[in-house]
Amino acid sequence: MIDIKSLFEGKIKGILVFGKDIEKKYLSDFIGARVGHADVYARVKDEDDVQTILKIAYANRLNVVVRGAGTNLAGSTIPDGGVVLDVSDMNQILELDDETLTVTVQPGVILRDLIEYVEKRGYLYAPDPAEKGASIGGNVSTNAGGMRAVKYGVTRNYVLALDLYKIDGTKVHLGAKTYKFSTGLNLQQLVVGSEGTLGVITKIVLKLLPLPEFTLNTVIAYDSLKQGISNVNVIFKSHLDPTAIEFVEKKVIAYGEKYLNKSFPCQNAKSYLIVALDGDKKGVYERFEKLKEVVKAHGAIDVIPLDDEAVAKDIWEIRGAIARAVNASGPWEPIDIVVPINRITDFVDYVNELAENGSPRIVAFGHAGDGNVHLCVLKDNIADEKWPEVLHNTMEKLYKKSYELGGVVSGEHGVGKGKRDFFLQNTPEEYRSLMIGVKKSFDEFNLLNPHSGYGL
Amino acid sequence: MIDIKSLFEGKIKGILVFGKDIEKKYLSDFIGARVGHADVYARVKDEDDVQTILKIAYANRLNVVVRGAGTNLAGSTIPDGGVVLDVSDMNQILELDDETLTVTVQPGVILRDLIEYVEKRGYLYAPDPAEKGASIGGNVSTNAGGMRAVKYGVTRNYVLALDLYKIDGTKVHLGAKTYKFSTGLNLQQLVVGSEGTLGVITKIVLKLLPLPEFTLNTVIAYDSLKQGISNVNVIFKSHLDPTAIEFVEKKVIAYGEKYLNKSFPCQNAKSYLIVALDGDKKGVYERFEKLKEVVKAHGAIDVIPLDDEAVAKDIWEIRGAIARAVNASGPWEPIDIVVPINRITDFVDYVNELAENGSPRIVAFGHAGDGNVHLCVLKDNIADEKWPEVLHNTMEKLYKKSYELGGVVSGEHGVGKGKRDFFLQNTPEEYRSLMIGVKKSFDEFNLLNPHSGYGL
Repeated sequence: MIDIKSLFEGKIKGILVFGKDIEKKYLSDFIGARVGHADVYARVKDEDDVQTILKIAYANRLNVVVRGAGTNLAGSTIPDGGVVLDVSDMNQILELDDETLTVTVQPGVILRDLIEYVEKRGYLYAPDPAEKGASIGGNVSTNAGGMRAVKYGVTRNYVLALDLYKIDGTKVHLGAKTYKFSTGLNLQQLVVGSEGTLGVITKIVLKLLPLPEFTLNTVIAYDSLKQGISNVNVIFKSHLDPTAIEFVEKKVIAYGEKYLNKSFPCQNAKSYLIVALDGDKKGVYERFEKLKEVVKAHGAIDVIPLDDEAVAKDIWEIRGAIARAVNASGPWEPIDIVVPINRITDFVDYVNELAENGSPRIVAFGHAGDGNVHLCVLKDNIADEKWPEVLHNTMEKLYKKSYELGGVVSGEHGVGKGKRDFFLQNTPEEYRSLMIGVKKSFDEFNLLNPHSGYGL
Repeated sequence: MIDIKSLFEGKIKGILVFGKDIEKKYLSDFIGARVGHADVYARVKDEDDVQTILKIAYANRLNVVVRGAGTNLAGSTIPDGGVVLDVSDMNQILELDDETLTVTVQPGVILRDLIEYVEKRGYLYAPDPAEKGASIGGNVSTNAGGMRAVKYGVTRNYVLALDLYKIDGTKVHLGAKTYKFSTGLNLQQLVVGSEGTLGVITKIVLKLLPLPEFTLNTVIAYDSLKQGISNVNVIFKSHLDPTAIEFVEKKVIAYGEKYLNKSFPCQNAKSYLIVALDGDKKGVYERFEKLKEVVKAHGAIDVIPLDDEAVAKDIWEIRGAIARAVNASGPWEPIDIVVPINRITDFVDYVNELAENGSPRIVAFGHAGDGNVHLCVLKDNIADEKWPEVLHNTMEKLYKKSYELGGVVSGEHGVGKGKRDFFLQNTPEEYRSLMIGVKKSFDEFNLLNPHSGYGL
């Protein structure tokens, strides 16, 4: 330990913590079930600190795992020795450029703060990951998605340029503050979603949109999940321009209802869609009327616009409480499989079938408009010693099914350490070896987040 | 020659032509000013042919340049010996999936055919490159943009999955038929815009949108280019949701007017914007009224909706004739610089300044909504022996200026051979070396389009 300490001590403006003194929360992800170990925790103040840390790590062949707010769910921030590089103090919004509709930020800026900052100035940061406490560097590193992907796409679609430090401390500016870019390989897009395996992001230029004047959410009730999901295609084709289309089964809503002792509307429904529309208020209501007509003609049993504040508040509270109810019930594992949008029902049917055949309890809901299904696999009263194996077997089945249906491991959380085995099981070696090759062209000695995702 | 011939002859179902028998058009790009040389021209029939050609090329370390319709303007399809692999006969639309709103195509499908095919079925293929005779494989390889990028983005945003043959003949399926994807490095996005340097694309899954009910184009006249360009920001912020915003100066329109002996409206204007709005007809006209109000309050001298068929026909004919007038005037070089949207005026001012100081004639127009400026540098009566140097010096200045303004070499055409020198002049070595590293991880011996773009 003394060697490592002497390498770093006094070299940066930020905070250094060594070995056993490092807090557990910096050795894990949001779930906290898996805890790694590290020699150094370095909470950097600025780019110079980043460069200093990387140069030392590179010279001494130490692994480096970057972290921001640490809200990741896939174990991308769990270290295996070496350095935990915490960029959460690099949290400045550097520029809002009114003339190019862009905002330039440091990676530690919290999504909630970014949203508030740009909305106050009349702009929309269009991606809408549910976890507003995430740092934007983490959003870029996982290509975070969220509800509004249906209309606006995901984080990737808003990243114009990045500053990246390579493992050896070299800084490279990737991309430009331009909306189009066909100038050599698009490395800024490659870095998006790379989960800290290619370099350390220190600056991000993001595209903004004008803030929509008005948003209306609508709950649509159905007799079955299948009926609801079949309406997604109908909604798309009816020129309703939905911002978001979420699905949730009644039995899943029940977790939230029970937790809060409140009721969702239309209790005789088996499944719901929540559809958001945005734009000018008049246009939104015209589209709402059309939406109502269209879904009622396609099997919806009720359509409830959330324009009554009290109703809306209850509904969002109940929806939000699902995750809290799950969390309160003990250990659980988050999954964010993505499948082609026409295979959501097949996938959720399979989940329900597993549950009928003795699997752990699985709660499924998610983004119907983009095929991104969130699953919570719950431990409940499964014995501690059995849980890892039971969970592993369940996840193995779920991921296998996702690939059978044309899906992949992750729509927005990333692969991390949590899904690595299942990613490898379902990814042909020639595909993965291309990723490894690219990784090595950035990081020859495989030091950056080496055991995460597609890693070695 | 005899050796090369014996390597390939009888091995594929497609057409083979050797050495001096290869037609000149297969050794160049659309401009045809630069002509390369090749040992073999292989017009493949299917994936087996692609694999066979690549295996032979790889075993014998022959360069391979892929081409489709050959409409590229940047010299990406000019070979330096080795193989020209022509995929234009692989031109089948393989599937239109109504349930996932995707279309799966071979690379040789012509953009015009794809558009017609999907529009007949009620879908929009949202990217809108001007050259409708291009092949979709070329569009993917250059990340082609076009007019509608303002609202819908570029080719990149619609590529969900690709089949790619590596130089050694290995096939890899990249991506999935899913709207979200955070599963390892996004190699499908890396291949988009890579100009044939990473592999041979044999299949592409593209996302479709529902076809808008109605589109209205509007000509807006201004006293100056600057006034017009300043309105782009105003239009964005007024929630008008424009599909496209194009700019063209009166003196440039004059080329088309003269060529056709027709007149553009509002002759006292110095500059125009052409703004497209799409959606349902009623909504479009409401937004048009608001557009009119907003731009008139910001210096527009006239606003002409192109809903009179005769007027619209004239205007598009004149606009379309600019390129033909340029083409008819002799040799010219196309440039597609992209700058931050607030620097368009600075850039065009610089172009005009160059012209006043004795540079060749330069015609500038382009995509005001995304900063992508198209320049035609005309030879006119500059002596043949002087032209290459004059052109080179002019381009050097233009590209230097683009980088000074925060722009890059290409917004949608790619770097190819034509812009390679200027790309290298303006790109830090550490940036380019990352590209080279990635390239080598796909193509160790640097055989695929080796001297193009960022190449060696």
